[in-house]
Order: sequence, then C-alpha cells, then structure tokens
Amino acid sequence: MRAHLNDPAHLTEHQTEAAHDAAEASARLLARLRETTPLTHCITNSVVTNVTANALLALGAAPAMVDITGEAGPFAAIASALLVNLGTPNPEQRDAAREAVEAASRAGTPWVIDPVAIGALPVRTALAHELLAAWPTAIRGNASEILALAGAGAGGRGVDAADTTDAAADAARRLAADSGAVVAVSGPVDLITDGVRIARIANGDALLTRVTGGGCALGAVTAAFLGAARSGSEAAGAVDAPDTSDAFDAVVAATLVYTVAAELAAGPGIGPGTFAVRFLDALAAVDAADLRERAHVTVTAGEPAGSLA
Amino acid sequence: MRAHLNDPAHLTEHQTEAAHDAAEASARLLARLRETTPLTHCITNSVVTNVTANALLALGAAPAMVDITGEAGPFAAIASALLVNLGTPNPEQRDAAREAVEAASRAGTPWVIDPVAIGALPVRTALAHELLAAWPTAIRGNASEILALAGAGAGGRGVDAADTTDAAADAARRLAADSGAVVAVSGPVDLITDGVRIARIANGDALLTRVTGGGCALGAVTAAFLGAARSGSEAAGAVDAPDTSDAFDAVVAATLVYTVAAELAAGPGIGPGTFAVRFLDALAAVDAADLRERAHVTVTAGEPAGSLA
Amino acid sequence: MRAHLNDPAHLTEHQTEAAHDAAEASARLLARLRETTPLTHCITNSVVTNVTANALLALGAAPAMVDITGEAGPFAAIASALLVNLGTPNPEQRDAAREAVEAASRAGTPWVIDPVAIGALPVRTALAHELLAAWPTAIRGNASEILALAGAGAGGRGVDAADTTDAAADAARRLAADSGAVVAVSGPVDLITDGVRIARIANGDALLTRVTGGGCALGAVTAAFLGAARSGSEAAGAVDAPDTSDAFDAVVAATLVYTVAAELAAGPGIGPGTFAVRFLDALAAVDAADLRERAHVTVTAGEPAGSLA
Repeated sequence: MRAHLNDPAHLTEHQTEAAHDAAEASARLLARLRETTPLTHCITNSVVTNVTANALLALGAAPAMVDITGEAGPFAAIASALLVNLGTPNPEQRDAAREAVEAASRAGTPWVIDPVAIGALPVRTALAHELLAAWPTAIRGNASEILALAGAGAGGRGVDAADTTDAAADAARRLAADSGAVVAVSGPVDLITDGVRIARIANGDALLTRVTGGGCALGAVTAAFLGAARSGSEAAGAVDAPDTSDAFDAVVAATLVYTVAAELAAGPGIGPGTFAVRFLDALAAVDAADLRERAHVTVTAGEPAGSLA
Repeated sequence: MRAHLNDPAHLTEHQTEAAHDAAEASARLLARLRETTPLTHCITNSVVTNVTANALLALGAAPAMVDITGEAGPFAAIASALLVNLGTPNPEQRDAAREAVEAASRAGTPWVIDPVAIGALPVRTALAHELLAAWPTAIRGNASEILALAGAGAGGRGVDAADTTDAAADAARRLAADSGAVVAVSGPVDLITDGVRIARIANGDALLTRVTGGGCALGAVTAAFLGAARSGSEAAGAVDAPDTSDAFDAVVAATLVYTVAAELAAGPGIGPGTFAVRFLDALAAVDAADLRERAHVTVTAGEPAGSLA
Repeated sequence: MRAHLNDPAHLTEHQTEAAHDAAEASARLLARLRETTPLTHCITNSVVTNVTANALLALGAAPAMVDITGEAGPFAAIASALLVNLGTPNPEQRDAAREAVEAASRAGTPWVIDPVAIGALPVRTALAHELLAAWPTAIRGNASEILALAGAGAGGRGVDAADTTDAAADAARRLAADSGAVVAVSGPVDLITDGVRIARIANGDALLTRVTGGGCALGAVTAAFLGAARSGSEAAGAVDAPDTSDAFDAVVAATLVYTVAAELAAGPGIGPGTFAVRFLDALAAVDAADLRERAHVTVTAGEPAGSLA
C-alpha cells in the first residue's frame, strides 16, 4: 500500500491535496507545540516511562509522570493534556487514573486513553470500559485493542496487533461515534477517525515495532498535540478542550509527525538499538519540510457510522 | 580462561566437538525462536523493564510485562514462557509472581526464576525459596545468588557477584539436582548445569557488566528460548514444558546467543552507552555463522551431584 | 555567564585558583570512587531508574534500587550512600524511603534527597518536609524545588525549573544553614552551598535538559561521590558520614564531573538520542585531564546565611 501511495501516478488530485493539507496543518501544530511546550501528564506503564519522557522532551513537550492518588487529580487539572496508558495498571495507578480522568473532564483537559492489551486481560479491560464512559478526547491502540474496546473482538496477545488496521475501520468509526473521541488505530497504515472522516497515514517504518514504546510513546505525543491545539484555541478565546475538529487535526498531526520521524531514523542496515537513538534525534529535528516531502495521507468522509448499540 | 579456550592448540578434539554441537543446536533454536516469536511473560524489576523488552524484541520474541494480580495468572497460562525476576519485588508484584507461577505450573508453561540480590535482603530471599518449591524450569543468577539459593552462601551486595562462577559449581549442581531445574550461573565464564552435565560458555564481554540489565535481560531471553524449545516439542506432539534435556539445550542456547551478541557489540574504544545500543543491534543480527565461528563451549558430565539435604 | 567565565582575560587570579582547586579535588574523589565502587542505594522514580543505574555503572559506582519496606532499611545501613528521589512516590516507596532514611541516619550512611516537583504536588511536598527533618547530607533540586523546600516559592510545574538558579541562591544558603545539608541547585550555572561557601559551576550543556533523568541521575551520582568521600574518611579513621566540608567537596565533584562529561558528549548537530548514549560513554571516560581543562568554578564565602525561622 505504501508503494502505491508513494507513486504520484497513482494519486488522484484529491489525494494529493489531502496529503498537502495534512502536512500544512501538522506543521502549524508542530510549531505551536514547540512554542508552548505543553505540559503532558502521563500515567503510563513501567516499561515505557523512560522512552515516553524522552520522546516528549525530544519533540519539544514537557513530560510529567504523576501516577499516585492525591496528586494525579490536581495535576491533571493544571496539565495541558493527559495520557492514560493501561500497560501495567497496578492498583495505585488504577485509582490515580480514575482521579486524573475525573479532574481532566472537569477542568477541560484533553485526555487520551491507550487500552494496552485489553481483551484477554480482565483487570485492564474492565478499567478501559469504565474510563471510556468518561468521554476521552482520543483513543489510541492497535487494531486488536480497538476491536476489543468496541466490543467487536477478543483483543490481542499482549501488545501485538493480531488484527489489521482495515479490519478495525468499521469498529473504529462506530467507537468514535459512540464515545465522542477521535480514534487512532496504529498499524502499517495508521487510521484516524472522528466517526465521519477517516484519515489514513501510510508513513512510518516497521522498526517502530522492534523497539518497546513505539506505540505507547505515540499515545503521549498525541496528548501533547492535543495540548498544543488547546493552547491555540485558548489564544483564540476558547477555554475548554479542543472541539472534535481540532482534536482530529491534532491526532493526525501527532501520527504524521511521529511516523515521518520514524522514516528519518530508519534506513538500510539500521538495527533496533540504533533506530531507537536516531528516532529521538529525529523527533527533535523533524520539521515542516520533512512533513511536506513525506506525508502520505488520504482522507475520506462519508455517512456517520452506525451506533455500536 | 577465555584466552586458553580461544587457542585451538589447547582444545581437545572432544572440546571442539562440544562447541560445534552447542553452536548447531543453538542455531536451530534461534531459528525456531524467530519463526515462532514466543510470547514471553515477564514479571521483572523496574530498572530493567525497558531494556528487557527491547532485548526480546530485538532477538525476535514478543515481550509482555504483566505483573498485577488478577492478570498474571491467566496470562502465564497462555504465554509461551514466564520470567520471574525479584529485583524490585513490591507487594503487588510478589502476589502476582505467586499467581503466575502457580498458573504456569498448572498449564505447563516453562518458567525461569532470577533471584536478584537474595541473601542479604530478607523479603526477596523468602520469596525466592517459596517459589523454588514450585519447580522452576530454570534458575539464573550470579554466583553469589546461586550460592545463597542453594543455602551455601550469604548472597551478594545487590546485583554484584562477589563470588566466582567456579566457586558456585558444586552448589549449582546440587541445586539443579534438588530443584529439577536447569541452573545457569553468570560470570566471565557462564556455567549451566542440569545436575549431571555442566556446560561452560566462555563468550561474552565485560561491558555486559557496565550496563544495567546485562544479567536480568538474559533471564528473559532464557525464558524466550524455553518457549521456543517448547513450541518445537509441541510440534512433535508434546503438550507440556520442555523436558530437562530440551531445557538444558535451551538455556545453553540462550546464554550462547546472548554472549556472542555481546562480543559482536563490543570492541576497542566502545563505551557503555554505545555498547548498549550496539548490543540490541547485535541481538537482531546474530546468526548461525556467528555462533559457529565464536562458540567457546565445553560440556562435562559426571556423577550426579549429592543432594543439598 | 559561561562565555564570561571561559575567557581567561575576565578571570581574576582568585577565580582561576578556585577552578584549579576544584578540578584537583574532584579528580582525587573521582579516582577514589572508581577504586571503591561505592554501593549506591537508590529509591528513585520509575522514569529514570534505568538511566540512573546506567549512569552509576558507567561512572564506576555500583547501583542498587531497593525500594520496598522490610529491605530498604537494612540495605541503607550497609550501603555506601543513599539517594531518595521523590519523582513517582507510590505508597510502598514512601514507606520504604522513611525506613531507609531512618536506617541511614542511624548507620551514618550519607544520603541525598531530590525533592522532584514539590510545591504544586501535595503528597511529595509533605514527604519532602518530613524527610528534611531527618538531616540529609545533601539536597539536590532545580531552583523551583529548592525555593519550595525552603518555603520561599510555589514550586515548579513538574520537573521544569521555572525559577533561575541565582534567584534561589539566598534560599539555598538559608536551607543549607538550617538543614545542615549541602544544597545543590541545578541550572545553566549550578550552585552549591553549605550555608557559608557558594560554589558556582558553569559547565554542562543544554542537552542535559532534553533527556529525562538529566537531573535525577545527578542526584544518584552525588550520593556515589558522598559514598566515595566517606570511604576515604573511613580509611583515615572516621566511621561516620562525611563532615560538612567533605560533603561540600563531594557535591562539587559530583556536579563538576557530571557536567564536564555532558560537555564531552555534546557537540554540533548532536540530537538528544545520540547525546544520551554519548553521555554514558563520557561518564566512563571522563578523567582528571578533562576536569583540569574544562572546570569553570568560582567559590565565594561570606557571612553565614540568616535562618529560615
């Protein structure tokens, strides 16, 4: 699919325009992120805390891992955005996530849920459904996780994506329509939908799946872009979380910037250790020209998805 | 000792054959691991979760850190193999380890215990002895830890190995004979025994001791090889954990692949930061030819060790 | 300020001498650290455990993360030094920190507190003030954190330093005088005071702020140098924690070695991923000649600071 998208002869004028528009909008949000260094509150799993913080710092955001009760709530209220990742949800962190989500909802802080490995694992699956009812701004997962959250699949084995992105497209649209969240499905081609529009981003590199945190850190980067979009809205007089349209653009921007940075880091003969290092360098270096040159984005819009109910 | 083993003039024909056999058997298991991507369930310490996951991903296995109660048991039952590392055993993780080990035993999932820093530290020492009674498939530690687990030493100071590998050889054989586990003792020369045979592997590089997780990630890699060996047995009709002979070969293969990769990563003027990066690259790249060229393995067999009792 | 200090024409003879003395004293302590490999007990946050352990290993110390109750106390009593970092203080870790600090105080183990992000966050702020009453050997933080601990500021937003080092100078001197600790304030110019003397170290690189753990690992390195200084005192007959004068020199040495290593790692076009790797290499390689060549240290002494009370 990427080869197809890469070949200008196979792109319609409409597709070229979509890629151009996405690159420009993403470049504007990336610039705003670097100007505003959104304070990105992460409640995330013990495997990826380090790489998540480093990805945010490299990109230009300010990470803060605050995952204990008594602090997660107050912090979510003042943060620019919040990520809740369910990768290693110990009891204290589960309560902290509940506290943070409630405070974020009240304060208008945009928040992202990453339902890592739900489906097969009962504790996190129950928590994911509980938090889903609190109106997340965005949901990020692989196809298996999105299918499980939409009630349409059995979930993956750990963080593997046993299902393909396209197989999750309908479930993602329905999940978006029902939850009010922008839903992002990671895969060789990333899919992002607000329930009506579907963006497909054919950037990135398979090495992202050979280093831990390749998906999880994208959840934090997504939160950071939502924080940047919000600060832009505030400048224009709004006080709440970004509306769905802003959120859609922010999630597209996060995914595009992240996957283009992965392309800059990858190359022939690059092993996973070297890739992880170069990827942080690339998150710091990626710019508007890279996005314009490399964006492979299509956007389709159609009937709103049927309800899950 | 490595110089001695490196010098072909000092190797008997028997030793050369042992190295050749170990390289061939390890190469077969490495190929099987990469074909089957064993789902490797890790309950491990907070310092090394990231490097452990990255080592498994680089090698070709699928890591999953599931360390909470209510999930650790169900997951151990479906995983290809389990690692329990006692490096930072908080109360929730201790209960999750008990739950996982019980489920692994019931389901026939092979499992590895790494009794980090037992001896001096009371909580983990008690837990290590408790888990030891549940018949681990393999035990991995440095000489001090193995001596402490065998009741023959006072343990190390943290993860340092205050004792030498050879000093632990007798304790390791008795521990293997009494526990039914394959015992691996890490050191400049790694020692692996099933209570009768003793393999000595003189590969590796001292830089492995200058990066955190150099030993802990080997425990996870050992679990992954046990998972790969098991899937091979399953293909041949078996349904349980690998028998002791398969387990011995799998632990030898894990150690050999890991230490040969360390050699590929090391070199003159390589600092510890660069080594850690190159080591992940090497785990992804190491192949049968590297094993054949570099394996320095001897295997001795003798009387079964006397009981610990 | 760094340009000014770099220019010999602007340095008084007194300033040149201070830099020379600091470089020589730091070189001696660095050599002692590498000879004695101080066992450095860390209770630290989940984001930086890995990089902290790797920084200590690269430098030549022996890290041990022991952060559960029942073990933290006994271990603090036998460790060379202790770090308590409040970055992600879950309930078990808070109790472990209390246990460790009590045991360290009783055993004469020098200990460092790093009050990460206190001020805005209530749980850790209360704990920091509680632990402060137990006579830490050293306190390390950014300007916002030191102001908050001294009761003179509102704290930062996460680990950002919203305040400047010089703005915290008076608060740091009063905090040192009242607590009996050496106080280190991180920033573009690091400030270290025992309540009377103030050392300013104008080394380092801004890339340290673009990788997570840039400040937190310095807390652990500070503990390691206090451990090394103590073992030197023990050799000379003392049995307790280093006295304030030794502690001042040790904290200066830790900061100087760490920031000079950062300079060795940085360079034109170096991104944050590459910097993190090269920084570990540099911690292993930094030597007396590097300190002599690069040290930009001034020391002023004056009236003891007024009390906080």
